[in-house]
Amino acid sequence: MDVIQRPLIISVIGGGFPPPEALIQAQEVGRELAKRGVAVVCGALTGVMDAVCKGAKEQGGLTIGILPGDSPEDANPYVDIPICTGIGYSRNVTVVQTGRAVIAIDGSYGTLSEIGHALAANTPVIGLGTWDISICGKQDNNIIRAKDPAEAVVKAIKAAKLRDKG
Amino acid sequence: MDVIQRPLIISVIGGGFPPPEALIQAQEVGRELAKRGVAVVCGALTGVMDAVCKGAKEQGGLTIGILPGDSPEDANPYVDIPICTGIGYSRNVTVVQTGRAVIAIDGSYGTLSEIGHALAANTPVIGLGTWDISICGKQDNNIIRAKDPAEAVVKAIKAAKLRDKG
Amino acid sequence: MDVIQRPLIISVIGGGFPPPEALIQAQEVGRELAKRGVAVVCGALTGVMDAVCKGAKEQGGLTIGILPGDSPEDANPYVDIPICTGIGYSRNVTVVQTGRAVIAIDGSYGTLSEIGHALAANTPVIGLGTWDISICGKQDNNIIRAKDPAEAVVKAIKAAKLRDKG
Amino acid sequence: MDVIQRPLIISVIGGGFPPPEALIQAQEVGRELAKRGVAVVCGALTGVMDAVCKGAKEQGGLTIGILPGDSPEDANPYVDIPICTGIGYSRNVTVVQTGRAVIAIDGSYGTLSEIGHALAANTPVIGLGTWDISICGKQDNNIIRAKDPAEAVVKAIKAAKLRDKG
Repeated sequence: MDVIQRPLIISVIGGGFPPPEALIQAQEVGRELAKRGVAVVCGALTGVMDAVCKGAKEQGGLTIGILPGDSPEDANPYVDIPICTGIGYSRNVTVVQTGRAVIAIDGSYGTLSEIGHALAANTPVIGLGTWDISICGKQDNNIIRAKDPAEAVVKAIKAAKLRDKG
Repeated sequence: MDVIQRPLIISVIGGGFPPPEALIQAQEVGRELAKRGVAVVCGALTGVMDAVCKGAKEQGGLTIGILPGDSPEDANPYVDIPICTGIGYSRNVTVVQTGRAVIAIDGSYGTLSEIGHALAANTPVIGLGTWDISICGKQDNNIIRAKDPAEAVVKAIKAAKLRDKG
Repeated sequence: MDVIQRPLIISVIGGGFPPPEALIQAQEVGRELAKRGVAVVCGALTGVMDAVCKGAKEQGGLTIGILPGDSPEDANPYVDIPICTGIGYSRNVTVVQTGRAVIAIDGSYGTLSEIGHALAANTPVIGLGTWDISICGKQDNNIIRAKDPAEAVVKAIKAAKLRDKG
Repeated sequence: MDVIQRPLIISVIGGGFPPPEALIQAQEVGRELAKRGVAVVCGALTGVMDAVCKGAKEQGGLTIGILPGDSPEDANPYVDIPICTGIGYSRNVTVVQTGRAVIAIDGSYGTLSEIGHALAANTPVIGLGTWDISICGKQDNNIIRAKDPAEAVVKAIKAAKLRDKG
C-alpha cells in the first residue's frame, strides 16, 4: 500500500448567528471548496459553520467539525467528522491550526480570536467582509481581502499551497 | 440533500513504542474495524497509533489522528485527517471522547491517562493486554477484556451501539 | 476558620516583544494594581508580561503566570505562581478567564486573540494603545479606552466589581 | 528588587466524592504541606480537593485551584487562587504539571488519568491508598507508596527537590 494522499484542508470561521448574507456566502464557500476537492474544517456549530458544511455536502465534500463540547450530537447535521474536544473555546486554536489557510466570513468575537490565533502562527487568513484591525492608528493588512466566495477560495488554496512549498 | 449518515468512530489507544506483538494486534484491530465500515480515531503518532491506521488503510478505512502539536507533518503516514490541536497531552481527552468506544492495546502511561479519562466519562473501554487497575486491594472490572483483535472490535462496536441507544 | 477572602485578580495582556513605551506602561499598570491589593494574571513570558509582573512585585503584589509550556522555568522572574498548562496558545483563554477584567496594552496577534476571547465571554476589556477593531466599516466600541496606566487600572477595577455585582 | 523566591508547589489529587477516611487524610496532607511552607495545587472542586485546601488554610498555607470551568465561584471555599481554564477535564494535565510532585489520595477515574499524565512526564507520584496498576500480570512500581499523610508529604518534598536538582 502506498502512503495515502491527504486532502487539502481549509478552515472556515465565522459567527454562529450572522446576518443572512453571510450565510449565503458561507454556503457558496463550502460549494467552491468541495468542487475543488478541498475538505472543510470549522467549529461544528450553527450560522457560518452550518452553512459552509451544507454547501460542501451539496458538492460531495468532506466536513470536519471541532466541537467545544464532548458530544457528537452538538455538531450541525452537515458535519461528517465531529471531533469532541471538551475544551470549550480553546478549541478555536484547533480550528485554525487544522486548516492550511483560513477563510473568515463576517465575524463574531470568537471569529476575532481565531483570526488572532491564525495570524500569530503565520497561517494565511482570507477575509470576506470580516473584521478590520488596526493598532495606534495603523491599519494591519495581513488579512488578505476577497470580494466574493469564489475569490476567497482561490486565494485560500493559493496561500495554502505557497505555505506548504515554504 | 438528506442529512448525512456519519460513520461510527472507535478510539484506539496504546503506546508509541510497544512490544512487537502489540503492533500486530493493533494492525489487526485496524483491519477489523475498517472491514466493518468503522472509522478509527487515535493519537496520530507512532507504535500502536501507526499500526492501527496502517491496518485500517489496508482495508480502505478512514483514519483520524489527534495530534498533540500543530503540524500535520507529525502525523504517521496512515492518518487521513490530521487534527492539529497544539494542546500537548491534553489532547488525550479529545482522542477518547471522539470515539463512541475505546480499544486499549498494551499501554504506556499516556494510555493509562486515556483509560482514566474514558472511564470517568462512562465511555466503554475494551482492553487487549492493557493495564489492570485496582484500588485498596479491590480489582476494578470496568475495563471489558477481549482475548484477540476480532473480539475487541466486536465488543467495542456492540458497546458503542448500546451506549447510543441507552 | 472563616472562609477566605480572595484577592481581586485582573488579567494583563500584551505582546512579548513590544515597543519600549508599552513596557513602561505595563510596569506602571503592575504597580498601580499592586498598590490597590489587586493580583495580576498574565501569560508568564516576556515583554508586557514581564514588565507588568516586575511592576507588581515592586509594590509587593501577587503575580500569576499561565504558561503555554510545562516547565515553571519558562516563566519570567517576576511570576510568583507559574501555572504549567502545556496547552500552547490555547492557554490564552485561561489568561483572560482567570481575571475579572482585562487590561490590553499595545498588542501582538496573541493579544488580539485574547481580546476576542474576552469580549466573547463578556469579560470587560480596557485598552491602552491596543487594537482597534471594526467590521464592514462599523467601529466596535466594546473595548473601553484608557489614556494612561492609572486610568486603565481604575476602569478595570470598576468594571470587575460591576460585573460581580451584576 | 531581587528575583523572587517561588514557593515549592505540590499537586494533590483525589476523587470528588471519596470515603470519609480519604477526606481526613487529605486534610492532614494539606496541614503538613502548609506547615512546611509548601503551596498546594489541586482541581479546585469537592472531596479530596476541598479537604486538602481546608487543611492547608488551617495552617496559613497557599492554595491554587485549577478549575475545569470558567467561573471562580465553582472553586471550593478554601481555594485562594482559582484558575479558570474552561477546558474541562483536560485541565487534569495542568493540575499535575503545576506541582513538582504529586500526592494521590484514594482515587476516582479522574485521579487515574492524572496518575497516568504525571508518570508519563516523569513527575514523581506518591500514593496514599490510591490506584495500583499492573500490565500483563506485572506490577508497576513507579507510584511511591506512603503509609500516612506525614510520610506522603515528606516523600513528595524529597522527590520534588531531587527532581529539581537532577
